[in-house]
Amino acid sequence: MSQPKIQEIRGGVTASLGFRANGTRCGLKRKGKDLAIIYSDVPATAAGLWTSNKVQAAHIYLDKKHIKSGIAQAIVVNSGNANCCNGRAGIKDASLMAQRAASHLDIDPYTVLVASTGVIGKRLPIKNILDTIPTLIKGMRRNGSRDAASAIMTTDTVPKEAAVRFNINGRAVTIGGIAKGSGMVSPNMATMLSFITTDAAISPNGLKVALDKAVDKSFNRITIDGDMSTNDTVLMLANGISGNDLLDEKDASFSIFCTGLEYVAVSLAKMLVRDGEGATKFIEVHVRGARNEIEANEVARRVSNSNLVKTMVHGGDPNWGRVAASAGAATAGIRQNLLDIYIGDVKVMGKGVGAEFDMIKLRRLINKKEVKITVDLNMGNGSTTMWTCDLSEEYVRLNAEYET
Amino acid sequence: MSQPKIQEIRGGVTASLGFRANGTRCGLKRKGKDLAIIYSDVPATAAGLWTSNKVQAAHIYLDKKHIKSGIAQAIVVNSGNANCCNGRAGIKDASLMAQRAASHLDIDPYTVLVASTGVIGKRLPIKNILDTIPTLIKGMRRNGSRDAASAIMTTDTVPKEAAVRFNINGRAVTIGGIAKGSGMVSPNMATMLSFITTDAAISPNGLKVALDKAVDKSFNRITIDGDMSTNDTVLMLANGISGNDLLDEKDASFSIFCTGLEYVAVSLAKMLVRDGEGATKFIEVHVRGARNEIEANEVARRVSNSNLVKTMVHGGDPNWGRVAASAGAATAGIRQNLLDIYIGDVKVMGKGVGAEFDMIKLRRLINKKEVKITVDLNMGNGSTTMWTCDLSEEYVRLNAEYET
Repeated sequence: MSQPKIQEIRGGVTASLGFRANGTRCGLKRKGKDLAIIYSDVPATAAGLWTSNKVQAAHIYLDKKHIKSGIAQAIVVNSGNANCCNGRAGIKDASLMAQRAASHLDIDPYTVLVASTGVIGKRLPIKNILDTIPTLIKGMRRNGSRDAASAIMTTDTVPKEAAVRFNINGRAVTIGGIAKGSGMVSPNMATMLSFITTDAAISPNGLKVALDKAVDKSFNRITIDGDMSTNDTVLMLANGISGNDLLDEKDASFSIFCTGLEYVAVSLAKMLVRDGEGATKFIEVHVRGARNEIEANEVARRVSNSNLVKTMVHGGDPNWGRVAASAGAATAGIRQNLLDIYIGDVKVMGKGVGAEFDMIKLRRLINKKEVKITVDLNMGNGSTTMWTCDLSEEYVRLNAEYET
Repeated sequence: MSQPKIQEIRGGVTASLGFRANGTRCGLKRKGKDLAIIYSDVPATAAGLWTSNKVQAAHIYLDKKHIKSGIAQAIVVNSGNANCCNGRAGIKDASLMAQRAASHLDIDPYTVLVASTGVIGKRLPIKNILDTIPTLIKGMRRNGSRDAASAIMTTDTVPKEAAVRFNINGRAVTIGGIAKGSGMVSPNMATMLSFITTDAAISPNGLKVALDKAVDKSFNRITIDGDMSTNDTVLMLANGISGNDLLDEKDASFSIFCTGLEYVAVSLAKMLVRDGEGATKFIEVHVRGARNEIEANEVARRVSNSNLVKTMVHGGDPNWGRVAASAGAATAGIRQNLLDIYIGDVKVMGKGVGAEFDMIKLRRLINKKEVKITVDLNMGNGSTTMWTCDLSEEYVRLNAEYET
């Protein structure tokens, strides 16, 4: 089978047919939009993934209950307050958000999903949200993706949207999404929210499997600061409006759908890293030669989360020993005398020993906006790629000054 | 048994009878002393602990070989170069250091231990070291601890020394040590070196057991940046000059010795944290109510290594949700609805829900130089204490600019 043709298009989360969105201000953040909605004109098949943190936001309890039916039609999101550690009151607030939206949309409250992001441990100013929901719904429109993407931002500096179109059995299908990230972003999802839509018709099981695979290759492969959030959420709606034959995991074209979805998810994930708090550089960490993929992931995480590697890239100083030290800290199978390390295409360490290399070329490579680090364990066929950013003074300033 | 009387004294690593030390400059660092020696007038029982990093410095290979006999008489240490990832050439250089010192001291090379700290992946300027060893040895003296402590520093800003005296069966015994740390410091030991001496007579097994216990309660309970070094080394020499009856693990007074050793190790470990790269504050993380000590340790590490918790303390902003999020990220048994969190003595979260508290008092507590964070999982009796420091812009600056 030839590679399916995936076309990048505009339109973000509303690029898919039959979806409308909006973002507006209800007064939770100091300034800017802070309330968003994504709405499907018809009930859609829904799937979700949430943080594995043991401390979880209220909306996660609600979403897990609401998504059991496999059907959803709207997603309401606030930024500026995480609605986490608020006990039963927090869950009630999340429920009120869903109920108010449902009553104005004239749909079942169980088909409304919600999400929150922001400061932990403060009660949600629920009146602001409830009072603004009617206006929010009134303003929903086919090209509302950008406003929704803006309204879910916290310390993000740019809204994040991606969409693709491709054919399934001759039928054009669209997948589009928005995301927010910035800090507390780590593999296994962190303070990140992403909402993805598609007009494809796909079975509940097919959608769940496709989303799991895509998240594993995208949002679970990024880290900004290694901190895992209480609020991470990825939600996906598939409304079937494109009119393709119902897709399932067993169909030949399922892999095309997965490729398209992975494209959108990876695009959004990389945008999160590029806009990481204080980030000035994009770092790709590629690990190969591990005994298996799990060990490759562990080594990649060690390197990606190392403050010393991140400050090294920030300073543009090729102190590659820090890469060796961070990889060596892994519990994975590693033999020092087999270890190769590259920065860009320059081998800095071969078989555990510092290599001869062109320092001028190396300095040039590490001073680029995008830096690639490769660690080859030379022990097997396990490999992985992870994306992260540098650690700057600005990250510290932002997080030391973050308002409670 | 009443608590043994442990008296803090001056003199660092040479406070113990029969030890001499010196530190001088051989030209590895840009400026300052960078070569140290610690010497026992008589052969001493020796024990050591090294990094668990899979990438290890040359001196670790050598030390593990030399210490097999259980006897050592001298420790030679250079700063400014880690002698790591230099392959066989590095091991040969480490061996030359030991040989040159042995020949000038007229002792067996196998009784000389070595250690290195500094940049990874550069050949050791071995000629500088070999040429300086005669002068270094000539200058050894009973009050040489401070010079040795200075000569092992890298980005440390102050030399670190500690010593105690106590009685074992009526006989005065001394334990003293020096240490260096600064960056790449994490539980399981990181770029930290510590050398401890005692004039007690103790069996090889007793010394090893006592050192393991003390390191577990001190150097393994600190973290500065979560990065684990390739060079971590703790070496201890016991020369028996105090004349006590040979102490062994089974003796009643063994616990007194352990208490004294733990006192010195914890003192040095805390000094490392206080002088962490860019550190402006000292943070104690206490976890209790875990199902067991292993899980308590994991939770304490998560909190201590969280960049968001560290920047929160740096900024003096009581955004306690970050403590909840970092604890919740642990794989340990945690139930959100049982979780209590305190900053100082102020309960900020009770049973998973934000508590009512005096914000003015809380701000005052978090703006102190020493901040205590307590996490109570309320699930069992496992507890632990870990020490760390804040994360400042200065940490990033130091590590972005660190010279390769």
